[in-house]
This record gives sequence, C-alpha cells and structure tokens, in this order.
Amino acid sequence: MTDFRDVGEFGFIRRIQGACLVRPEGVAVAIGDDAAAFVVPEGEVTLVTTDLLVERVHFLRDAASPEDLGHKALAVNLSDIAAMGGTAREAFVSIAVPGGLALEYVEGMYRGMTSLATAFGVNILGGDTTASRADLIINVAVVGSVHEKEMLRRGGARPGDRLFVTGAVGDSRAGLHLILNRLPADEEALAALIRAHHRPRPHLAEGRFLAQSGAVRAAIDVSDGLSSDLVHVARASGLGVRIDAGGLPLSPNLAHFCRRLGFDPVAYALAGGEDYVLACAVDPGKAAALARAFEARFHRPLHPIGEMTGGGRMEVARDGSVTPLPPAGWEHFPASPDRRA
Amino acid sequence: MTDFRDVGEFGFIRRIQGACLVRPEGVAVAIGDDAAAFVVPEGEVTLVTTDLLVERVHFLRDAASPEDLGHKALAVNLSDIAAMGGTAREAFVSIAVPGGLALEYVEGMYRGMTSLATAFGVNILGGDTTASRADLIINVAVVGSVHEKEMLRRGGARPGDRLFVTGAVGDSRAGLHLILNRLPADEEALAALIRAHHRPRPHLAEGRFLAQSGAVRAAIDVSDGLSSDLVHVARASGLGVRIDAGGLPLSPNLAHFCRRLGFDPVAYALAGGEDYVLACAVDPGKAAALARAFEARFHRPLHPIGEMTGGGRMEVARDGSVTPLPPAGWEHFPASPDRRA
Repeated sequence: MTDFRDVGEFGFIRRIQGACLVRPEGVAVAIGDDAAAFVVPEGEVTLVTTDLLVERVHFLRDAASPEDLGHKALAVNLSDIAAMGGTAREAFVSIAVPGGLALEYVEGMYRGMTSLATAFGVNILGGDTTASRADLIINVAVVGSVHEKEMLRRGGARPGDRLFVTGAVGDSRAGLHLILNRLPADEEALAALIRAHHRPRPHLAEGRFLAQSGAVRAAIDVSDGLSSDLVHVARASGLGVRIDAGGLPLSPNLAHFCRRLGFDPVAYALAGGEDYVLACAVDPGKAAALARAFEARFHRPLHPIGEMTGGGRMEVARDGSVTPLPPAGWEHFPASPDRRA
Repeated sequence: MTDFRDVGEFGFIRRIQGACLVRPEGVAVAIGDDAAAFVVPEGEVTLVTTDLLVERVHFLRDAASPEDLGHKALAVNLSDIAAMGGTAREAFVSIAVPGGLALEYVEGMYRGMTSLATAFGVNILGGDTTASRADLIINVAVVGSVHEKEMLRRGGARPGDRLFVTGAVGDSRAGLHLILNRLPADEEALAALIRAHHRPRPHLAEGRFLAQSGAVRAAIDVSDGLSSDLVHVARASGLGVRIDAGGLPLSPNLAHFCRRLGFDPVAYALAGGEDYVLACAVDPGKAAALARAFEARFHRPLHPIGEMTGGGRMEVARDGSVTPLPPAGWEHFPASPDRRA
C-alpha cells in the first residue's frame, strides 16, 4: 500500500490526468491551469449541478468498493443533468483525503468515475485535492447544456398530465437496507439490489429523449424517493398528484426481497430513494404516442404511474381506494430521526 | 442559538435564496430545480474552478468569523477566474454541517459569501447542503467566462518577459502566523495582516485589465506562494525565472511584523501563500506602457518583480548576487512536514 499523501497533490494529478479528457472537442483548457475553459454548444444554456458526499453520512468506506463510490459520486450529478433534459459535458471533482488512505483506494475511486464519464462522453476537467482530518469527502460538480426550449423543469405540469417513470423504483433502497443491516447477499436477486444502490445508471439518453419529444411538461430525477420527488413537482407546478400503485414498476428482485423480509413493495417503491430514474408529467394528448416511441427507442416501457391533479393533494390509489401519500420526504436533516441511520 | 439541523436543508435554502440572485440577467433557472441553468455571453469560453475547504486543515472554526470563512471560500475561487482574465458569473456552494453547529453560524458564512458575490455581480445559483459527522466542509465552484483570445494561461511566457504582481505579497502568511501562534494583534498593523489572511480581495478587475491589454503572455494568481506560483508559470512555459528581490512589493505592515518578530521580509514574501494578487509575464516591448496604464486605471503600481529566463533555473537576485529560489512549494500533502500545521 502507498499512502495517498506520499505522492502529493501534484503527483496524483499527473497520475490521473490522462484518463480524464475523453472528449477533447470544445475544451480549451483542461486540468493544470487556474481554471478549466471550454465551450458549450452555441444557442444552448449551461446547466450546473453539484453534490457533496461525506463519509459516515452518505457512504461507509467498508461497505462499498472505491470504484462504486467514484461511480456513484459522478452518477448522481449526471442524473440531475438528465432530469433537465440536458447533455452532460464536464465534471469537476474535489476530494479531501484522510491520513492513511491508500493511493490505490483513491485511484479506484477515479477509475469508477472515469469509467462512467467515458461511457457518457464526459470530461473530468478539474477539481481540488486536499487533506482531511477525519472523513473522506467527495464533491462533484457537473456542467451540461441543453437548448432552452427543450429544458425540462420541475414546474410546468398541468392538471390531467400523465405521470411516468423511466425505470424501476425501490431497488436502491432495498440494497441500502441489505448493506446497513449487513444482511448476506446470498442470492443473485439480493446482490442485484446492492448493485442498484452502488451503481445507479444515469438516465441521460432517456432525459434527452423526453426533452426532444415536446410532450413532457415537467421532470425530476428520483433521488429523494418517488413520493418526495413527485411532491417537489407538484409544489413547483402548484398542483396535486395521484399515484396509481398498480402502475409502479417493481422489479422481480424487489418483489423477492420484500417477500423474504416481509415488507410492502409498494411502500418501498414510494419511499425509495436514490433510484435515479426520471419521473415526468406528460401532456395527456401525447402520452400514448410518447410511451410507444420510448419503448421503440429503449426496448423497455415508459411506466405510467398516475397523474397530476388540480387540487394540492398528494394521493395514492390502491386496490380501489384513494389514500393520502405517506409523507416520506428524505431531507438530509430530517426533523424525525434519520431513516438511514 | 438554533441548531442548523432543526431548520432542515429545504428550510435553510428558503432562508438564503433571496440574497443569492444578484444579477438575474442570463439566468434561466436559479436555486430549486435539479440543476441551475444560465447563459454565458456569446462568443466567450466558459471557465470553471473549484476549491474545497476542510475544517482543521484549511481553517479553524474559532480563529475566523463565519463571515470571514464564507468570504474567503468564495474569494479564492474568484481569484482563479481573475487569473484567467475572466469575468466571474455564477457560484455553487456545497456545505456539510456537523451536528450542533448554529444556524446563525451558517447564515453568517452565507452573509460573507453573498456580500462578496454582490460586490462582483456573482450569483449563488445552487449547491448542496448536507450533514457531516466531524468537520465543517465547504466546497465552492465558480463559473466565469472570457473571450478565448483574451484568456490568460500559465504557459505562453517567453524569455525576457517582464514579471509583475498586482499587489503586496506576504501579508496573508504573516496573518496566518499570528493566528496559528495565537499572537495578540495588539497593533493596527498586525490586525491588518490578519484581515489580509481572512479577507483576500480577488483581483477580478485587474485580471480583466491585464487580459484586455494584449500585453500579457502568462498569468497566475498567487495562492501557493509567489515562488511556487512562478515555478508553475515557468514550468508551463518551459522557462526559468529570475526574481528581483528589490522589486517585491512589501507592505509597511509586513515590514513592521518582520521587524518585530525577527523574520526576513523577502523570504516571507517569496514563500507567502494565499495572497490572491495576480502575477503575470509581460511582453517586454509593452511592459512600460502597461505599467503606466495600470497605474492610471487603479491608482496604484503594477510592481515589476523580475523576468522570465531562457534556462530552466529559478533564481532570485538580491543585493548584487543571484541565488537559487528557495523551494517553498505549498502542496496540500507536502513530503516534508506540513508547514502550516
């Protein structure tokens, strides 16, 4: 093992620099100057999002591989760009490294990031590398772009808009449950749930598709949990939401997990969190055509899960009765005890 | 005192949101969606820089006011944009807050940031707010822009280019010495050095002036320390540097501090660090006119401090003799013991 600190900040930058520039077009200055410089395609607005991950709050160092950690730190930001309908372009990675952390660990994190970045044509164009006294800290900022007319916002939904999601919800939270309770992933179904938690796939292509369709009036990525995130859309649009529980896409893995542990899969899917699929509100006149086009393009369904309603109520329809959506907002400082701790 | 965590992430965002948008033009989406969206002026390249500040590594919570901390976290990033010759536009602030930290403290930090941001027309357009188990963490990313032809790089200097700095060097390090050794700032000169450390003024107007002059071939902001930063310029340009010690701008406050504590002011100014003035290499045929124009514009001198040389040597000329520049690289993980610890 080599202590990360022995190679120094500049030494480390020299080691990783080569893998960071995967799409040189449009880049005027990469790593190694006072700031990075690049062009965003003419006529597009610039998108910026950033996420800070703190050891013992967002991850446990012994519960994920460094590659997983790097992958996820970048993926959650790419997902935000996807939710705006944008193209992800440049990433900036700040890390603070506690004493004694192996160089190999930090290089593993960067491998996880550069591998995902390469898959989506995203450059790592800069960042900051420093010491930490206690916890490993990772901040990623991602710059993307989109034509302003195509940009997807949280607000803008109208009553009667159909709600869809681009993939299964609940798997990531089930994976987190297995990790936090140190339950053995002794079946492939459980191992897949843990992978869903560690290795979310940002729905960038899906976001671009939705943005270009002209049928989507509002969108969000499912990070806090489906019901919380739909509450964000409803509030930003001044509306309510009615979710059809029967429409929620539940994976066979989640169904198996819930049977084995005695949980309600619908409640799991609604509370969820860190699914990183997209939820969107669609013009009802264009919903059927959009769903068909999505399936033709991605070879899997765009899942109808309910609709926007004119009141301010958040409801779920299940087995013929309509009940208020359980409050499951995932804030980073919940007034109630942290449901992840 | 209100515990920061009692107001929650979303509650806090609602409290600070109003002060964050100081220049609405060009902003399509501010705080409150999946990503911020804005336009960069047509024909300009986008600049991005980011800095991560970690408690007990970069600052001590009891040694600076929260306003100072917020000011500095933003200022160091604005300084990087200044060093590229750019205009700073949008800032993104991620914070991780340890348990028990007062809401008032975090609001004070934001006051420090928004006050500086307002002075330079910079919006705070987004970020992330989360919990930390141990230390207070602040990551700031700043987006700026510049016409590519005006952009100032570290490389590009030529042998014989004259070196200048836009302000005094060494004050900030002297202030840090007073802080770390808990020496009383019992005279105004010493209090001013501490202010220089806590409240650096980003030289954005100076950077724009240098960029537009057409006379500057390379530039950097003095963050690691003048000699380290000139080594960066020299390496990026494939050249050497000869500093004229007699030309170094030493403030009367630094001179007083060095007399009182028995330090060599030249060594202090060369090692320095966190001065956040700009150093630049200037076409020798245009140097005199540039210095005159700078003085006319800013009512203080552009200080000549030496020149770029054809070899790879880093030297300092002092009292008629030329000696190698003492190695004083400030890396965040120095192989030698951390000179700040």
